[in-house]
Amino acid sequence: MSQYHRQHTDLFRSSVVLPSLQYKVVDTLRTFGPHSRTDLARRLGYSRALMTGIVKELIERAILVEGKDAESTGGRRARLLNFNPDFGYVLGVDLGATSVDMTLADFREQCLARFHEPLDVRLGPEAVLNRILEIAQNTLDKHHIPNDKLLSIGIGVPGPVDFANGILIVPPIMPGWERYPIRRKIQAHFPETTVVVDNDVNVMAMGELRTGAGQNVENFIFVKVGTGIGAGIVVHHQIYRGSNGCAGDIGHIQVDRNGPVCHCGNVGCIEAMASGAAMARQAQQAAMNHESAILRRYFDSGIESLTAEQVSAAAHEGDPVALKIIQTSGTLIGEVLAGIVNFFNPSLILIGGGVTKSGTQFLAAIRRGVLSRSLPLSTQHLRIDYSSMGDDAGITGAIALAAEHIFVPEP
Amino acid sequence: MSQYHRQHTDLFRSSVVLPSLQYKVVDTLRTFGPHSRTDLARRLGYSRALMTGIVKELIERAILVEGKDAESTGGRRARLLNFNPDFGYVLGVDLGATSVDMTLADFREQCLARFHEPLDVRLGPEAVLNRILEIAQNTLDKHHIPNDKLLSIGIGVPGPVDFANGILIVPPIMPGWERYPIRRKIQAHFPETTVVVDNDVNVMAMGELRTGAGQNVENFIFVKVGTGIGAGIVVHHQIYRGSNGCAGDIGHIQVDRNGPVCHCGNVGCIEAMASGAAMARQAQQAAMNHESAILRRYFDSGIESLTAEQVSAAAHEGDPVALKIIQTSGTLIGEVLAGIVNFFNPSLILIGGGVTKSGTQFLAAIRRGVLSRSLPLSTQHLRIDYSSMGDDAGITGAIALAAEHIFVPEP
Repeated sequence: MSQYHRQHTDLFRSSVVLPSLQYKVVDTLRTFGPHSRTDLARRLGYSRALMTGIVKELIERAILVEGKDAESTGGRRARLLNFNPDFGYVLGVDLGATSVDMTLADFREQCLARFHEPLDVRLGPEAVLNRILEIAQNTLDKHHIPNDKLLSIGIGVPGPVDFANGILIVPPIMPGWERYPIRRKIQAHFPETTVVVDNDVNVMAMGELRTGAGQNVENFIFVKVGTGIGAGIVVHHQIYRGSNGCAGDIGHIQVDRNGPVCHCGNVGCIEAMASGAAMARQAQQAAMNHESAILRRYFDSGIESLTAEQVSAAAHEGDPVALKIIQTSGTLIGEVLAGIVNFFNPSLILIGGGVTKSGTQFLAAIRRGVLSRSLPLSTQHLRIDYSSMGDDAGITGAIALAAEHIFVPEP
Repeated sequence: MSQYHRQHTDLFRSSVVLPSLQYKVVDTLRTFGPHSRTDLARRLGYSRALMTGIVKELIERAILVEGKDAESTGGRRARLLNFNPDFGYVLGVDLGATSVDMTLADFREQCLARFHEPLDVRLGPEAVLNRILEIAQNTLDKHHIPNDKLLSIGIGVPGPVDFANGILIVPPIMPGWERYPIRRKIQAHFPETTVVVDNDVNVMAMGELRTGAGQNVENFIFVKVGTGIGAGIVVHHQIYRGSNGCAGDIGHIQVDRNGPVCHCGNVGCIEAMASGAAMARQAQQAAMNHESAILRRYFDSGIESLTAEQVSAAAHEGDPVALKIIQTSGTLIGEVLAGIVNFFNPSLILIGGGVTKSGTQFLAAIRRGVLSRSLPLSTQHLRIDYSSMGDDAGITGAIALAAEHIFVPEP
């Protein structure tokens, strides 16, 4: 995050400025949960006296509170420091292609209210964001929270984001959103609130990092396989965004130089060969060629093209063609991940997104693909699993993203 | 580095333990060079008073000194803090396949003596390391440096390293070295010295990070194209080693699923298709098939197989077959790097290793390969260049690696 703190002050213009040592304490509690003063001092390498002073200031500012229930540590009882839930509130927004999820949380990231409704991003940014603002305002009003107590909003969107500026870039599934200033729009309504926009995969990785399988894992990757394919990267317990904020955009890595043409113009991209959309296309083709009775039945009964969900359903019915499509996709994804494993050597890969509903065959194929092409040392301690958070990864991550940007260290 | 500090205390058993805040000051000066107290306080977010205290202790311990020549900053003259050159000494060792380079440096990483001699790693670890110890001891004796003033030794070796344990793993070009405990061997002779072993590519990346084109670049990759292909990764101004210490091992990323079989057992690895060894093999084949008069001449006049150097020489003579081999290798490497660029979004890629002597055609082909397959946003601020440090990257990096491990923060 450090690079954004320094370079992109606009992102933090509504953030609360904290002295650097106070900021580090807050950041540590966000990342690793409640600590005693002693454990905080040890983790940050501060003296006990220095830590006592810093904590005193944070308690005086009503940012931290001491736990009423002390936790015993080795005989002595140490009071745990945690966030004061009443310091303020955050909103997490998870915008999908066809729906929106919103969660209101307190300063401890505990959910106070949750909201879900269908919302088609193809309505365009004005209509969609106005509706989101309406839901947000209604939610605050219902809970008697004045707007100036809303500290930050975190928003995950299904497309590549210029993180520093809160703008969507060439979003393939969001026509009309290109370069739309999402942050500015939200901030016009909530001028005192920090607004953070990130792509959905980074947000999901953030959710896993904060409360899922990624807790306490130093380096891991979250891979979303849905209509497209993308990855969120965690390095040293933080989202790694790269130099332009577009790290993890793995959908256009080439997997077969003789493969089909992708919508990006290149050939053999993993997204063109193994995403949910690609699987649906392959199933459609098989149905039209009468290669599978089950897929043909779906095809004949439907009014639109086949979907990835129908490929899964056909596989569950035992259709060998659908199963083959799923396995081939998994293997190809595994082969691309093998290259990433050789380069990045993570200890965990979490797979999320709609296609994970295809069942264990898909995961097994990914694992085989990775193992067949990675170096033995890289996979020695590597775990590859489905995300266990399901749809919660996105909304939990949006809350965490919001909470992480409430404060900014003194320059 | 943090994970190694905590997990692998053996690596640091001879390191000097510093209180955490002192360690951070030392670490900052190593990474970013001399600072005034004010600039240090600003960078680390400490108060001026706290910083004055920390610096006082470090000066009392003879670790830091105040510059005699003050540098003017905005009207006032601030004294720059730097390392005390006499605090101790470090040795950097760059072990290649057929030679060794060694540099003795003071605590400021300034070179005091440099040594080079042919040394074939195929002689095996005992013979090679005994010779290295002999050179090291002679160098110290000649400069009247007692062994207990040698604070650390950094060693780069041409193979994959288990960094935590200082052991080579399955080194393809170093028969007899597998799992040989290099660190233990060196430390038996220099028991009071910290010994750090890393693979040559990480060490070269470290050299670029410290004094080359990688200075002040937050995220970059150093790619070595020699007999093999490997990468060193820098994240947030630090070498990123991954979960098992083997991050950057990109030589076996698949570039063509219909490509040749690699010595690792897989097909179409970039190393099997575009390394110096692969280029030499392709040239050899062309010479045997009489496809190139120039390569045939080299072939007929030689007693061994053609080398990558001869492919370069033939290309310099204008041989189209040699040029084509070089361009194809560059393009393939560029295509693999394109995938890495999409995933990692670095702002700089530095290319080093023997094959860079092939000239600008090779670099141009790599750039084309990257641009043809990367997403436009990822390459917006991406620079791809040859390393300008040449052979100095390795030895400078070995010194920096050694210096970085002199101290360890209090647990």
